[in-house]
This record gives sequence, structure tokens and C-alpha cells, in this order.
Amino acid sequence: MRDSVIAELKVIPLVPSATGVSRYIAAVIDVIKKAEGITYQVTPMATIVQGPLTRVLQLAQEMHEVPFTMGAVRVLTSITIDDRRDKYVTMESKVKSVLQ
Amino acid sequence: MRDSVIAELKVIPLVPSATGVSRYIAAVIDVIKKAEGITYQVTPMATIVQGPLTRVLQLAQEMHEVPFTMGAVRVLTSITIDDRRDKYVTMESKVKSVLQ
Amino acid sequence: MRDSVIAELKVIPLVPSATGVSRYIAAVIDVIKKAEGITYQVTPMATIVQGPLTRVLQLAQEMHEVPFTMGAVRVLTSITIDDRRDKYVTMESKVKSVLQ
Amino acid sequence: MRDSVIAELKVIPLVPSATGVSRYIAAVIDVIKKAEGITYQVTPMATIVQGPLTRVLQLAQEMHEVPFTMGAVRVLTSITIDDRRDKYVTMESKVKSVLQ
Repeated sequence: MRDSVIAELKVIPLVPSATGVSRYIAAVIDVIKKAEGITYQVTPMATIVQGPLTRVLQLAQEMHEVPFTMGAVRVLTSITIDDRRDKYVTMESKVKSVLQ
Repeated sequence: MRDSVIAELKVIPLVPSATGVSRYIAAVIDVIKKAEGITYQVTPMATIVQGPLTRVLQLAQEMHEVPFTMGAVRVLTSITIDDRRDKYVTMESKVKSVLQ
Repeated sequence: MRDSVIAELKVIPLVPSATGVSRYIAAVIDVIKKAEGITYQVTPMATIVQGPLTRVLQLAQEMHEVPFTMGAVRVLTSITIDDRRDKYVTMESKVKSVLQ
Repeated sequence: MRDSVIAELKVIPLVPSATGVSRYIAAVIDVIKKAEGITYQVTPMATIVQGPLTRVLQLAQEMHEVPFTMGAVRVLTSITIDDRRDKYVTMESKVKSVLQ
């Protein structure tokens, strides 16, 4: 699978319940869980995904919409893409290469 | 124009000329200059754009492809979206509201 | 001034008034305005500063504390540093080099 | 331990070997491994740490210096801090709260 990027996706809903954003984030992650063709890993600061670039951007947009459907009026979403086309890497191989 | 987000777009090509990435970034910004339906502002750290969300993501993907067409084999792209649906804000009004 | 970095600083207070974070950000920017040895530029997405690295990190920490003194219980702060030691660049020269 | 933040640290050396930044990142992570009072987790996109804010910023600065000692002339470093003072959270509890 050559057409594959690793990306970090973070959705921050600015909601009245200020500190209790967990249920919003849980709903956002549900969208990732159901996404086909996407490998993912939830970290304490964001969710990291692997898949084709167009698919990842489409997924990010779907995730971004979730808090609005739950009542949020303002959402900040960050997408950071690492796209390497000289060799195929996976989320696991990337971590291994820096830990060894 | 209700369907409008403000977003920060940053493309970092990891190229052999290490520190001389200016010509790659110049080519990336050319894509923004030609983009229809997009307002933009170049800052010392990134480019900030305003436009419909789907259009902004499409533009980000076009920008991301530019360094690859110039020989880069690895590109890091960051997209940060601020999407506020309770009132219409512009890049200018956002800066004004925090400077006053 | 060789010991100088360009950095982007962003403080996001997660406050009950959700969308009305402007007064928090205004107070955060006041700290930058009073900071000695720092050049700054407010953009629609963050504030960009230039100064010695240690001074910039110290300033970021001061900015991060501001929303807590105003009642916030959770604050997200992002610091992105561009540190180039082969030649001296300024915020203006960086923008010029990619626009020409 | 009330005085504790969770932060994401990412160091990107812009080096001539373009795509082979692994050995630089490995050296950066060695600094984290040896850091006292810091819990850490390496992810495919960054390293996440937990510790007192001042300590985390000090560590980030030490990490940022590593590629320069190895010959790099330009380094981009990102620090994202999540500082919550209403209750004590850990990297583990944060992930659990959004997965359940």
C-alpha cells in the first residue's frame, strides 16, 4: 500500500462545559472506529491514523462535524500529515526506528 | 457568507537542501494566490486562509502535493481549522477583537 | 543578534463562556506587549514572536498562566519554534523570502 | 502530584539527509529517557510527556538542542501543553475517558 500517510488528528470543541469535553471526543473517536481503510491509535493528546491521504482528510472533516451535531458552536481541528513517498512506513515501524 | 472557516496551513518539505526551503514554500504559496474563493495572509510561520471548509481542505491537499512535484520525497503538512458557526468572523475582526 | 528564534505562541483557555474567549486572549497578548526583548506580530490564529529562545519559553509560560488567574481551570498552549543558526532571519525577511 | 501537565513534544531537524532523521530523533528521545520526574510515551508522530510544567519546558529546550550538537543548523520544535488544574489526570486516564 504505497498511497498511505500517517496523520495526527485532534478535534477541540469549545463547549460550555469547558473541562468536560470527554463525551464529545468519545463521539469523535467513534467515527474513526467505524472508518474503513483506516488504522488508528488513540494517544493522550490526539488520535493518530494511517490511510490514503484523501481518505484521511475526508475522515478529519467528518470528525470535525461531530461536536456541531452535539450542540457545539465552535470547533478547532488540527491535522498534521507525515507523507513519505520514498519508502513504506507504518505507525509501528516509525516508532521502532527511533527507539532502537 | 456563513460557510467560512479560518485556517492555518503550513507545508514543510524535508528536502536535501535542508535550510533552503524558500523556493518550495514560494511555489506552495503560488497555489494559494491562484485559489478562487480564498482570502489569505502570509505570516512568518504559516499561511492563514479563509474560505469554505471543503475548499480549504482541498487547497491544503493541493499545496501538500507541490513539493513532491519539485522532487521532495517527504512532506509534513499541518492544517489548523477554527470553525465558528454562531457568528461570522473575518481574519481582520478576529485580530481586532483581541487587540482592543 | 545571533541568539534569536521565531516562534508561534497560541493559548487556548477552555472556559465556560466557550466562544467568548477574546477577553482571555486580550489579557494574554497584554503580557507580550509588555515583554522586553521580544518583537511580536498578532495574527488571526496565533501570536508570532522573535527573541532569544530562553526568553521566548519564559514568555510562553507567563502567557499560559494568564487565563488561570482569570478563573480558567484548563488551558491548552502551543509553542512552535523555528530556530535557524546558519544565518540571521527576521519575521519580515522570512515572509519576503517566500513571497518573491 | 497536582503540579503536572501532559504535553506533546516534537523536534524536527531540517538536515541534509532529508528523510533519514531517525538517528536525530533517537538522540532526542534519549534525553527524555534520562529525564527525572518525567513520564513519557513515544507515538508515531511525537513524544507525549507528563510532569511539572517548568520541568517539561526545560526538557523541551534540552531536546531542541540535540540536533544542533549533531550538526543540524535548523530545528523546528513544537510543544503542546494540556494543563488541567481542576482534577488530576494521567496519560492513561485521559485515553480511558474517551475510549469508554
